[in-house]
Amino acid sequence: MAHAPFGPLAVSLGDPAGIGPEVVAKCWDGRDGFNLPAFVAIGDPRSITNVWDGPIEIVEDPRQADAVFDHALPVIQIAAASADAPGQPSVHGAHCSLDSLEIAVGLTRSGSAAAVVTGPVSKEQLYSIGFSHPGQTEFVAERCGVGSGNVAMMLAGPTLRTVPVTTHLPLADVAQRLSPGLIEARGRTTLRGLQRNFGIANPVLAISGLNPHAGEGGMLGREEVEIIEPAIAALRAEGWRVTGPHPADTMFHAAARARYDAALCMYHDQALIPVKALHFEDGVNVTLGLPIIRTAPDHGTAFDIAGQDRADPRPLAAAIRMAAICAANREVAE
Amino acid sequence: MAHAPFGPLAVSLGDPAGIGPEVVAKCWDGRDGFNLPAFVAIGDPRSITNVWDGPIEIVEDPRQADAVFDHALPVIQIAAASADAPGQPSVHGAHCSLDSLEIAVGLTRSGSAAAVVTGPVSKEQLYSIGFSHPGQTEFVAERCGVGSGNVAMMLAGPTLRTVPVTTHLPLADVAQRLSPGLIEARGRTTLRGLQRNFGIANPVLAISGLNPHAGEGGMLGREEVEIIEPAIAALRAEGWRVTGPHPADTMFHAAARARYDAALCMYHDQALIPVKALHFEDGVNVTLGLPIIRTAPDHGTAFDIAGQDRADPRPLAAAIRMAAICAANREVAE
Repeated sequence: MAHAPFGPLAVSLGDPAGIGPEVVAKCWDGRDGFNLPAFVAIGDPRSITNVWDGPIEIVEDPRQADAVFDHALPVIQIAAASADAPGQPSVHGAHCSLDSLEIAVGLTRSGSAAAVVTGPVSKEQLYSIGFSHPGQTEFVAERCGVGSGNVAMMLAGPTLRTVPVTTHLPLADVAQRLSPGLIEARGRTTLRGLQRNFGIANPVLAISGLNPHAGEGGMLGREEVEIIEPAIAALRAEGWRVTGPHPADTMFHAAARARYDAALCMYHDQALIPVKALHFEDGVNVTLGLPIIRTAPDHGTAFDIAGQDRADPRPLAAAIRMAAICAANREVAE
Repeated sequence: MAHAPFGPLAVSLGDPAGIGPEVVAKCWDGRDGFNLPAFVAIGDPRSITNVWDGPIEIVEDPRQADAVFDHALPVIQIAAASADAPGQPSVHGAHCSLDSLEIAVGLTRSGSAAAVVTGPVSKEQLYSIGFSHPGQTEFVAERCGVGSGNVAMMLAGPTLRTVPVTTHLPLADVAQRLSPGLIEARGRTTLRGLQRNFGIANPVLAISGLNPHAGEGGMLGREEVEIIEPAIAALRAEGWRVTGPHPADTMFHAAARARYDAALCMYHDQALIPVKALHFEDGVNVTLGLPIIRTAPDHGTAFDIAGQDRADPRPLAAAIRMAAICAANREVAE
């Protein structure tokens, strides 16, 4: 895949004191085994050379990456005010990670890069410099001019894709946050994403229940009857292929997974438990609803192991590969 | 395993119009491949002959099963007032399923059988004849003189065992139902069950959080800080090995599972999603906290496919095998 027709991918390094630089370098090292297309790293090159002895080459433009990628890791330089040691985050590093993200998204929006893959940042560090978004996803959405209510976070592994309707809120607040409109919006974003990013012309979406046994006909909770079934009916009326509400405990075994293209789940852990149980090393975070393609590995900065050569590059490799697949699907679709 | 040292197992057929009789017969057919010990079926023999042409032999006592098991399926006869057709449940069948359960439990309590494995019953049918327990588990507990608050439902597969703290209640009610005392009680029952039924002298229990990311230090919910952590501290003070609260989405991949013997989860789907995603065909329901051993396959009566030779016997075979393993462990322990 070294010379993909759609141009190189932009990979932001994330926080320079986290494991992002290390796993980006390891992905370049293992590019053949991982079957990765050409990509350009975006961030402070010192954060890479701190933890890796391989060849890097500074470039100005992603389009130079193709010529470099065979013999060195191409890097677009975003210099931090000072170079953090691995595992020692600072406000300089937080600024650098934000600048890297901004540039990576800008290059992708302009078409210089085919997709953006974002390395892990520290929300605590970003909040300390005034960052006001819940996470990178919402920042990317804003830069793309998309309201954060219209994007959806998909976690995608080789045999299962899930999207949570609600994400980071206390479990006790989930039921009151749900509405038919919210479920429909996430459902539409997911179905369109399956078409555009995954090349599935007529996708099937399986929608989970909220309660045990999907409420058992209203005996174990009314949300299925009052909120989820109306949302399913509305999506079907638009012509979408939607099933459910399914009892969440029996919708993730192999035979059940074969009956849908993605599962829309009511809350964070309902969506993430099955994907991470089945695909911990190669589950990829894919943001749906954007004009660009954005993926991310589903792990954090892991400051506690940064600089120790212990970080696993497989999640980032899966995210890069997934971004390339989505880019190829969009080439066909558009 | 045909002649286990601890005596035969008692297997109740469940509702005679469900798939119970068919899967019991198929387990006898496949007893060598499934590696099953001698067991005696308890129920209406007509419900078996309705759906199966193999040899059965009526016995009076489980201890006769050993001599019969090689050439016929031994059955202790509980005649229903009339024989239901498969898929056509009736009050006669409900009475028969309850009598079968009662006899199977009694034989196990008396020591004539080494363990009881319960086939699937229909709660709707049982309720129609005045049954007032939430399910078979609570009935078995009562017959054993154990309060239903002191038993725990474990779902056990080859690489994961989970126990839910709360079970069949609406998700919106879970948070308010949790208390340190309830978590401690379920934790103790689980830890003792790991010792007695699974032969693990010094078991490790991993306790999940309730909220996304286990509440992220109180940012996404306070239950971890106020309810779960005190319960963990109390169990540790008693000398138990307990870890957590763990973010539920990252505690079920292979490397995480290797670090504990069972996971104690806060609600139904948090416990059942990962076991069924990983072990749908061989997850077994094990009731902990009883003086006897009781297991069950984790499926229902499936009236819609009864009598069509479509029912999968693997869940029941796994339940019988698990009962035998637990019986052997208790022989050693006591």
